[in-house]
Amino acid sequence: MDSTMDSTTEQVDAQIVAAHRAHRDTCALAPARRADWLRTIADALEENRAELVALARQETHLGEARLNGELRRTAFQLELFAAEIERGEHLAATVDHHDPDWGMGPRPDIRRHNVPLGVVGVFGASNFPFAFGVVGGDTASALAAGCAVVHKIHEGHPRLGLRIGELVKAALAAAGAPDGLFSTVTGRPAGEALVDHPLVRAIGFTGSTAGGRALFDSAGRRPQPIPFYGELGSVNPVFVTEAAWKARREEILDGFAASFTLGMGQFCTKPGLLFVPEDGMRPALDHLARTLGDQPVAPLLNPRLREGYGQALAAARNVTGIEVAVPGDEAEAPRPTVLTTTAESVRDHPDLLEHEMFGPAAVVVTYRPDDRLPDLAALFGGQLTATVHAEPHEDVADLLAALGERAGRLVWNAWPTGVTVTHAQQHGGPYPATTAPGTTSVGTASIARFMRPVAYDSFPAEQLPPPLRDDNPWRIVRRVDGTWESPEGPTGF
Amino acid sequence: MDSTMDSTTEQVDAQIVAAHRAHRDTCALAPARRADWLRTIADALEENRAELVALARQETHLGEARLNGELRRTAFQLELFAAEIERGEHLAATVDHHDPDWGMGPRPDIRRHNVPLGVVGVFGASNFPFAFGVVGGDTASALAAGCAVVHKIHEGHPRLGLRIGELVKAALAAAGAPDGLFSTVTGRPAGEALVDHPLVRAIGFTGSTAGGRALFDSAGRRPQPIPFYGELGSVNPVFVTEAAWKARREEILDGFAASFTLGMGQFCTKPGLLFVPEDGMRPALDHLARTLGDQPVAPLLNPRLREGYGQALAAARNVTGIEVAVPGDEAEAPRPTVLTTTAESVRDHPDLLEHEMFGPAAVVVTYRPDDRLPDLAALFGGQLTATVHAEPHEDVADLLAALGERAGRLVWNAWPTGVTVTHAQQHGGPYPATTAPGTTSVGTASIARFMRPVAYDSFPAEQLPPPLRDDNPWRIVRRVDGTWESPEGPTGF
Repeated sequence: MDSTMDSTTEQVDAQIVAAHRAHRDTCALAPARRADWLRTIADALEENRAELVALARQETHLGEARLNGELRRTAFQLELFAAEIERGEHLAATVDHHDPDWGMGPRPDIRRHNVPLGVVGVFGASNFPFAFGVVGGDTASALAAGCAVVHKIHEGHPRLGLRIGELVKAALAAAGAPDGLFSTVTGRPAGEALVDHPLVRAIGFTGSTAGGRALFDSAGRRPQPIPFYGELGSVNPVFVTEAAWKARREEILDGFAASFTLGMGQFCTKPGLLFVPEDGMRPALDHLARTLGDQPVAPLLNPRLREGYGQALAAARNVTGIEVAVPGDEAEAPRPTVLTTTAESVRDHPDLLEHEMFGPAAVVVTYRPDDRLPDLAALFGGQLTATVHAEPHEDVADLLAALGERAGRLVWNAWPTGVTVTHAQQHGGPYPATTAPGTTSVGTASIARFMRPVAYDSFPAEQLPPPLRDDNPWRIVRRVDGTWESPEGPTGF
Repeated sequence: MDSTMDSTTEQVDAQIVAAHRAHRDTCALAPARRADWLRTIADALEENRAELVALARQETHLGEARLNGELRRTAFQLELFAAEIERGEHLAATVDHHDPDWGMGPRPDIRRHNVPLGVVGVFGASNFPFAFGVVGGDTASALAAGCAVVHKIHEGHPRLGLRIGELVKAALAAAGAPDGLFSTVTGRPAGEALVDHPLVRAIGFTGSTAGGRALFDSAGRRPQPIPFYGELGSVNPVFVTEAAWKARREEILDGFAASFTLGMGQFCTKPGLLFVPEDGMRPALDHLARTLGDQPVAPLLNPRLREGYGQALAAARNVTGIEVAVPGDEAEAPRPTVLTTTAESVRDHPDLLEHEMFGPAAVVVTYRPDDRLPDLAALFGGQLTATVHAEPHEDVADLLAALGERAGRLVWNAWPTGVTVTHAQQHGGPYPATTAPGTTSVGTASIARFMRPVAYDSFPAEQLPPPLRDDNPWRIVRRVDGTWESPEGPTGF
C-alpha cells in the first residue's frame, strides 16, 4: 500500500474523537435499533457482492467460490449478532432484589448489566478479507456490543478495505446511526496511534505473533492499560491413534491434504503438524504425494507473505532430522510441501512446535508404539485448535485432557479449517494462540469482549436503565434472584 | 513480618508444581464434589471463629463486631459459590447441534463449556483479613472455578494468615481434596516468583495502585503473558444535587461521616470526595465536625499504612485551595480529618481526583450553580463506585451516564462502603480501579475470571465431557441451539 495514502495523526485523532461522541450518543439505545444497523450493513454487503468479490480476487488471489462463501459468512455473522442482541444475551442482565434475610446480612437491591466499553480499535487480517476484515468478526462484535469502531485496513487489500468502509458508513447513515460511529484508517502509524489514544478502550487484532505481541505490549504500557484481544499464531496439531490409522489411513491423509492446503494454507486454523504411527509411512507419503499432485494452486495473498512463507519453509527444512517427503516448489503459486520427522526429533527441536509456516506446507511426525500421545501433546504451547482422529470408543481421555489444557477448540475425526459462527463456537486459546485466553473472536460470545459490567445499587425504578427494570421493557432474558427468567416469566432454574 | 519467615524460591516452586498436579487430578470433577470442599472450608472458619477473630484483632486493630461480620461474609461467600457451581452457571455450557440449514452453510455439532485455567496466584489484602484474605474472594472464586491456589499471605497479618492456611488445608484434606490444591507462601520474593512462574496461569490481587501496577507489568512481560486481575485504587466520588442538599443536608452528612470513617477509612470503597452545593457550607461543616467528634477511633491496620496515610494527608493539605475544615489529629489512632475545596480548585489540580488517602480523611468539594455535575464527573478516571444523592424523580441522566462510563457500581441515595456478595454484584471498574474492567472480584460472577472456554467440534456422545452431553448428567442450566434450558427442559427463550 502506498504510504502516501496513510491516515495522518490529525485524521486518526479526529476520527477517534468523532467515534467517542457517536458512542456516547448511542450507548444507551435499545438493542433493536442497533440490530437494524447490523442488518443494514449485512444487506449492503450482499447487494454489492459482485463488485466486492471481484475486488477481493484482484487483491488477494483467493478463489471466487471461497470469497462468495466468506462474504455470506460475514453477512450472516452480522445477522446472527443482531438476533443475539435483540435477545439481550450480551447484556447479562442480573437482578437481585432487596433481601433482609440474605445469608451474610440484609442485601440491598442490586442489579447489573453490561455496557459497551467505548471506542474500539480493530486491526483487519490479511487472510480473510471479509470475515476478519473491515466489517469482520471484531468490528461486528464491537458494533453489536454498542461500541464505536475505528478500523485499521490491512495493507494487503487497501482498495477492498476502503470500498467496504464506504459501504458500511453509507449503510449506517441510511439506518440513522450517527456520523463517526464507524470509520477506517490506513497505515502503520495510524495503527500505533489507535493503540495509544486515550479515548480508545480496547483493541481487536488478528495477525502475526511478532506484530501482535508488539501491539499487546504497547496496550499494556499505556498510562491506562486497555484490553488487547489479539489472535496470534497457532500450528493446530493433529493426533492420529494407531487404531484410526489402521482403520482409515487414506481417508485421513486425504482430509489432511485438503485441510492444510485450503486457501493455499493461509488459515490460522491450518493443521500444521500431523502425528501418525511410523507403521506404514512409506505408502502413506506416496499417497499424500499423489493426492497433493491433483491440488490446484494459486499465488499467496501478497508478495510479503510469499517471502515469509519461503523463509519459514527453508528454516524448517534445515532442521536436523527433518526430511522432505513431498517437495513442492518455489513458484509464486507454490505447490504444497510435506516435511516429515520423528517424535524423537521434535522433542529435541521443540521450536518446531511453534514454527508456523503460513502457506501450503505441513509436517508429518511419526511416533513409535512406546511414544505416549499425551506426552507429545504436552510439548505444545497455546493453540486455537487441536484435532484427534480415533475410533469412536477408544479411551483417549488423557490425550484429550492434555489438548484441552492447550487449545480453544478440540476437533474429533474432522479438520480444524472452517470455523462456523454459532453460539457455542470458541476461536481462541492460551498464549501464543491469543493474548486473552478467556475470550473468543468468532461466534456470539465474542460480543462480550467489548463490554463491562455496571451495577446499580439501591436505585428507584424510575432511575434504572430499561434492561434492569422489573417490567423488563426490552423483553430480554435475565437472571432474577438467582433464577433465569425469559420475558414470559420464571423458568424455575 | 520477619523476613526469615519468607518462603524460599525452592519452596514456592515445589508448591506451584504440587498445585499444578492437584489441579490436573481434579479439574474434571463434578461441581458437587468441589462444592463440598468449599462448604467444608466455610464450616472450618465458623468452627474456629473465636480463635480467628481474636488473632485478627491483635494483628489488624479492627473491631470485634466488624471482624465477626466479615468472617460470616467470608464463609457465606464460600457457601454461595458452592451453590452457584452446583447449578453449573460457571460452566456457561452451550450446545449447538449439527444443522444442515444453518445460515452460513451446514453447521457441525459444536459445544462449549468453561474449564479452569490451572494454578492461580492470589495476593491477600491488608484491610479485609478474612474477606480479601487467605480464603477471601479471589481464593474462593479460583477454587470454585476448579483451579488450584497458591496464596501469598499479606505481611500485615502473618499469624492469622498462616492459621487460616492451616485450617483450609486441613478442611480440604478432610473433604478428600488432593494435597497441594491450596497452599500459602510468605514474603515479597515469593510474590514475585508467583507472577513469573510458567505454571501459574492467572493472578488475583488487591492492593495499592503502585504495587499492583508493578505486578501487572510483570505478568504482561512474561514470555507467555497471563491475566492479571488487580483491584488497585479508587476515590469513590459522591455527588449531591441541589435538591437533595436542600431536602436532607444533615442526613447526607451523617451518612457521609459514617461511611468515610467506617473501618477507620480503610475501605477500597471509601467515599473520598463529596461534591455539594456551596450554599449552606458553613453550618454543614459545623455539623460534620460535631458528628465526627462522636466517632470512636482505633489504630490503623499497621504502622506502614499509618505512615502512608499521614503522608497522603499532608500532601493533600498542601495543595493550593485546600482548607482544613475538620482537623483530626496525628495520633496513632487518628481522629477523622475533613478537607474542603472548590470545584474550580479541583479543575486546576486534577491530581486530587486520584489522590487516595487510606484512612479516615475525605474532601468536601463545593460547586456553584453554574457548575455542571456531569462535567465534574467527567474529570475522574476509573472508579470502583460512584454515588449520587438526588431526589427520586430528578433528571440526573447525564450525571449517571458520565459516572457509568467510569465506575463499576453506581449507588443511589446510599453509601458505597459495604459490598454485598450476590449474583448481581460488581466490584471492579476501569483503570486505575482495576486492571481488568470486564471483571468483578466480588460476587458469583468473579468465578468466571479463572476459567476459559473450550469447544468440542464434531464429538461423539461417548467422548464428550458430562456438562455437554445431551442427557445433561450434572443437571445444569445450558443454552441449547440458542435457547436456554433448565435441567427440566426447554424454557422457550
